Amino acid sequence: MDNSFIYGKNAVIEALESKNREFNRILISNTSRSDEKIEKIKELAKDSGIVFQFVNKEKLNQIAQEARHQGVIAQVAPIKYVDLDDFIEKNSNELTSVVILDGIEDSHNLGAIIRSCVCAGVKGIILPSRRGVLVNSTVEKTSAGAVNHISIIKVNSIVNAVQRLKEKNYWVIAADHHCDDNYYDVDYTDMNFALIMGAEHAGVSKSLMKLSDFKVKIPMLTNFNSLNVSNATAIILFESVRQRVSKKRGE
Amino acid sequence: MDNSFIYGKNAVIEALESKNREFNRILISNTSRSDEKIEKIKELAKDSGIVFQFVNKEKLNQIAQEARHQGVIAQVAPIKYVDLDDFIEKNSNELTSVVILDGIEDSHNLGAIIRSCVCAGVKGIILPSRRGVLVNSTVEKTSAGAVNHISIIKVNSIVNAVQRLKEKNYWVIAADHHCDDNYYDVDYTDMNFALIMGAEHAGVSKSLMKLSDFKVKIPMLTNFNSLNVSNATAIILFESVRQRVSKKRGE
Repeated sequence: MDNSFIYGKNAVIEALESKNREFNRILISNTSRSDEKIEKIKELAKDSGIVFQFVNKEKLNQIAQEARHQGVIAQVAPIKYVDLDDFIEKNSNELTSVVILDGIEDSHNLGAIIRSCVCAGVKGIILPSRRGVLVNSTVEKTSAGAVNHISIIKVNSIVNAVQRLKEKNYWVIAADHHCDDNYYDVDYTDMNFALIMGAEHAGVSKSLMKLSDFKVKIPMLTNFNSLNVSNATAIILFESVRQRVSKKRGE
Repeated sequence: MDNSFIYGKNAVIEALESKNREFNRILISNTSRSDEKIEKIKELAKDSGIVFQFVNKEKLNQIAQEARHQGVIAQVAPIKYVDLDDFIEKNSNELTSVVILDGIEDSHNLGAIIRSCVCAGVKGIILPSRRGVLVNSTVEKTSAGAVNHISIIKVNSIVNAVQRLKEKNYWVIAADHHCDDNYYDVDYTDMNFALIMGAEHAGVSKSLMKLSDFKVKIPMLTNFNSLNVSNATAIILFESVRQRVSKKRGE
């Protein structure tokens, strides 16, 4: 059994009550009739700010494989998520960068991005609680341990998180291949910045584009305009590293 | 059944004789007694320069799942590999770059690298025929179609390929995190270059390091020194793009 899941009503209630597990989401079958236990799960989840979603039974069967799930599966995280305000406060004494992932779907991509972020000195990664993949055991494995060297922040609203970062003196950079400016024309050396990367297919959402101070693209040498999102993230982050290392050398 | 595999002695002989399939490798069980058909397979493979390898039966069972394999499975490629000399000849009229992958193990990494290569204007990718992953259906899928926009070259010896490229006026760049120079201190704008990236764990082999004109590292901002290989490849290639685009603008 994958250690990222808890199956069945009683097991999920127990985990919620113990408060010593970090939840990603709770999935509830949209066909099972509600009962006392499911109501209790929903109540406990609300109290702890944990998202629950109604999904079809096939999805639950697919996750559970042979395990009995009684219409309820909790996805738990192998890490402890960090609160955004705590993160901002803790890093307020030095220039800080964060990466905001607007609904990345693929666990391998998220794992690779976490590695690149740690190597590039990024201090935090912000993920939306309702869309895309959160930190599961595949992400942890693909990150090669990097997941333990960075703050992972799960938020209910990316828009609110971006507004909060702007209030706290972060400059916001959105990366999208429809933009005009090149990513290397931004000076990353002298500011707090939040880099927003879009999901694999959808790109960065319009509301986030509007909030951004810089809108950048990665120029291509061919018409084949389709970088993997983890590679695109690495390219931009290591341009910021190049600038900072070069500046230190006084170039 | 995965369309990247051909199972069983007769089917493999038929595919070898038809000469209209592109082979990655032929895997033969190291416990099955040799017979006329297996000898014929080995002979046909030798005639066509196709690598065959003896592996244990569990590996074959794992690939075949439910399919009957009789101790022989051929991995076939969804693309046509290109000959190195043909590639060099065809691209001799313009500055050309190639990426050499010294035994990459992971299909997702290879797929992502192929995408980045196409976006960055790289014309060819060189893979060793005996080690690492070759182009299979997972690679094709992960490459998002990029596999059809670049020459994939399969060679029996990476060392020979590097020597051939050097004779033909390519500069050879090896990337390894033990090197002293930074990747962005190389001027990529005015030369043919071959970038060698090492396997996920082993890095670039010593014999290839010796042949390299430039040995570069990607500097990190933390002690966590472990980039995903596809991200590392993208970072270096897009520095070459940055330099070329900047030069065109006359900066």
